[in-house]
Amino acid sequence: MSKAKNVVVAQSGGPSPVINSSLLGVLDAVKDFPKTFGTVYAGWHGIEGVLKEELLDMSAQPSEELRLLRTTPAAGAIGTCRYKLKTGQTEDYERIIEVFRAHDVGYFFYNGGNDSMDTANKVAKLAAERGLELVATGVPKTIDNDVGDSEFKLIDHTPGYGSVARYWALIVQNANEENRGACPSDPVLVLQAMGRKIGFIPAAARLADPNREMPLQIYLRESGLTLDALADNVNRQLKADGRCIVVISEGFDVGEIGESKDSFGHTQFSSSGTTVEQTVVNYLNGKGLAARGSARGQVMGTDQRDTAIYASTVDIDEAYEVGRKAVRIAAEEGSGWMSTILREGGSAYRVRYDKVPLEEVANSERSFPEDWIAKDRIDVTDDFVRYARPLMGESWPAVPLAGGLQRFARLGMSFADTKCKPYVPQAYRK
Amino acid sequence: MSKAKNVVVAQSGGPSPVINSSLLGVLDAVKDFPKTFGTVYAGWHGIEGVLKEELLDMSAQPSEELRLLRTTPAAGAIGTCRYKLKTGQTEDYERIIEVFRAHDVGYFFYNGGNDSMDTANKVAKLAAERGLELVATGVPKTIDNDVGDSEFKLIDHTPGYGSVARYWALIVQNANEENRGACPSDPVLVLQAMGRKIGFIPAAARLADPNREMPLQIYLRESGLTLDALADNVNRQLKADGRCIVVISEGFDVGEIGESKDSFGHTQFSSSGTTVEQTVVNYLNGKGLAARGSARGQVMGTDQRDTAIYASTVDIDEAYEVGRKAVRIAAEEGSGWMSTILREGGSAYRVRYDKVPLEEVANSERSFPEDWIAKDRIDVTDDFVRYARPLMGESWPAVPLAGGLQRFARLGMSFADTKCKPYVPQAYRK
Repeated sequence: MSKAKNVVVAQSGGPSPVINSSLLGVLDAVKDFPKTFGTVYAGWHGIEGVLKEELLDMSAQPSEELRLLRTTPAAGAIGTCRYKLKTGQTEDYERIIEVFRAHDVGYFFYNGGNDSMDTANKVAKLAAERGLELVATGVPKTIDNDVGDSEFKLIDHTPGYGSVARYWALIVQNANEENRGACPSDPVLVLQAMGRKIGFIPAAARLADPNREMPLQIYLRESGLTLDALADNVNRQLKADGRCIVVISEGFDVGEIGESKDSFGHTQFSSSGTTVEQTVVNYLNGKGLAARGSARGQVMGTDQRDTAIYASTVDIDEAYEVGRKAVRIAAEEGSGWMSTILREGGSAYRVRYDKVPLEEVANSERSFPEDWIAKDRIDVTDDFVRYARPLMGESWPAVPLAGGLQRFARLGMSFADTKCKPYVPQAYRK
Repeated sequence: MSKAKNVVVAQSGGPSPVINSSLLGVLDAVKDFPKTFGTVYAGWHGIEGVLKEELLDMSAQPSEELRLLRTTPAAGAIGTCRYKLKTGQTEDYERIIEVFRAHDVGYFFYNGGNDSMDTANKVAKLAAERGLELVATGVPKTIDNDVGDSEFKLIDHTPGYGSVARYWALIVQNANEENRGACPSDPVLVLQAMGRKIGFIPAAARLADPNREMPLQIYLRESGLTLDALADNVNRQLKADGRCIVVISEGFDVGEIGESKDSFGHTQFSSSGTTVEQTVVNYLNGKGLAARGSARGQVMGTDQRDTAIYASTVDIDEAYEVGRKAVRIAAEEGSGWMSTILREGGSAYRVRYDKVPLEEVANSERSFPEDWIAKDRIDVTDDFVRYARPLMGESWPAVPLAGGLQRFARLGMSFADTKCKPYVPQAYRK
């Protein structure tokens, strides 16, 4: 391109504790190429902000506020959305091109998972068809670690996962103090983890206890065990240790017993219905425990992806670098890539930043390696520990406090002047 | 007393993040009176350990391990229990005297709430009747802040509360980043707080936002609002701000709608049944929100009382000092007191440590001050903020890490030789 073009950066899907660190990486790196990149806008609440022409001016933000993005969790800074751009939503795609053209946008950085990479790819292709020079670049993000392939060749791990893994390691340590102290009356503690489709999050509970000293059982979605087998395992642990900590995936299949009726007689499911944790706790208490006392449980919720102090310093750094790398790729290699993290060989943990075609990521699918599940199906192997442990880092992140409260970045809400007609996103029309 | 007598320290009820700091205070202060106090034993899992003659030798513990008690949360170090010593359980009371006599115990430090102070008082009285010189002293602890009176004259606040208050302040800050970022799809976030009987814990959510900039609504058990009023409030907030964070007490009265049937047709309640959070989320989603998207929720569980890094440094220090004070009281004033924290007058936060008769604490009852509830019943007043804010402290506690994991105290399991016959606690007999 002959002259500097403006930039849009946007986030998609569920947040992570380090999503803002990637944003900061993009913002910082853009400054290294002043002839390439012009004004940087953020889509306020992701692609919804682009559709609605709500473009937050990031170039106008005070730098001391931007520095705080490093330790500001979740997506409160520029927002995210779950808006799905389906293939048939032609008007939405055309609208994106319209808004980009109106604001002289030549670069689009899209932070998200597999679906977002597919969207970024489609936007870039349509732009080319419509004669708009647009470089679309992906920045990977997901707490589930389900971006890329099962052989870890496209990407080793996704920013966000290391922090959630650290959350689970430290939370299970605390829970072990609780369970060890309270075991005469509450010998079983059931903790439900996120990760509906893939087991990386509950697996990270093992990082709390790599030497296997706790009475800890881990139930991945992939475990293939029944509720009855779970109860037998728990009772065996109670006989041996007098207590048991169960970490279970929200995607664990509890079978028909998981259904529950509310007071209107409706079957309840999912996040607002009966949870796996509740079903398991009720089942254990109904079946009779092999120890005095009862089972208790907790569904860990959005705090696993929005807790600042549990963020991993390694994850914070990598999220930043992967954001920077995306900018370098856009400037030097053109459109259609996602920046990646690849692990170097050798015993010490080292990574390098690389790239992969958006199309390849969009069409890839990762599963939890079967040989990382222990033979008894209620644990993961040391190979998993060797994979995940370095992602946790060694120290607490330096989350600044002011007046005892966490000092998070709070950006000025200064938006670009609108240049297009008002628009209602297709999915929001009646 | 003529010669040094041995000591038993024990914990009762739910733990707190600073319960071990009080234990350390007791252990340290005992060393200041070598002529008074002999060997220190901990009742392993509270009074159950005394009944079963499981007395952990605290004098044999390495001091570097004991130092770690300061930042080790919950009751994993020496255990706690929910065993209730009811008035009629004569055999249990006699057994305690028998075990104390056998081990030459002259001092009993009991860490707990109102009920525990009652128990300590009864044990001391029975000992006197049986001719055993026993000094029983209470160490206050509860996350609910329900020990003492409503005028804060017996005790200003209880160790444990400041840390749970800090947990809520910081967790709500994180949740606000989540909710602000995710609001197009998930505009309502409902967080359920502990405190079945009294509103101090959910009230602490206000500490996250003393200037009232967040769309935060707080529902104490004492609010007296219906589920319908809650839904109206939430919808009003959605119209104004597009999002809403609800912090609600587990003791909030949801009325009949809170009942739910499991797959066997049994009504589900309480910790293992349907929660207030779930009822509220289902109700809001069923009623229709005044914004796109749906309500989500989370029941904060035992992590609010066992999370090391959310502990308040002020609370850690006060818990330690109140443990120390109990020992001084026992040595200098004799039996029948509980150590207390009283707030000094003046604008700067300062406390002094004092004492109150066990009997007076046992017969006292605290309620949440009615004039600290805001007129709209969904907030607390600035007077509450002025009361609770200093308890949070200003900084992160120095929780040591080793290999990336929290380094908690792990005591040697060295028990006193048994001298009495085996005994089954009364409540555990068939």
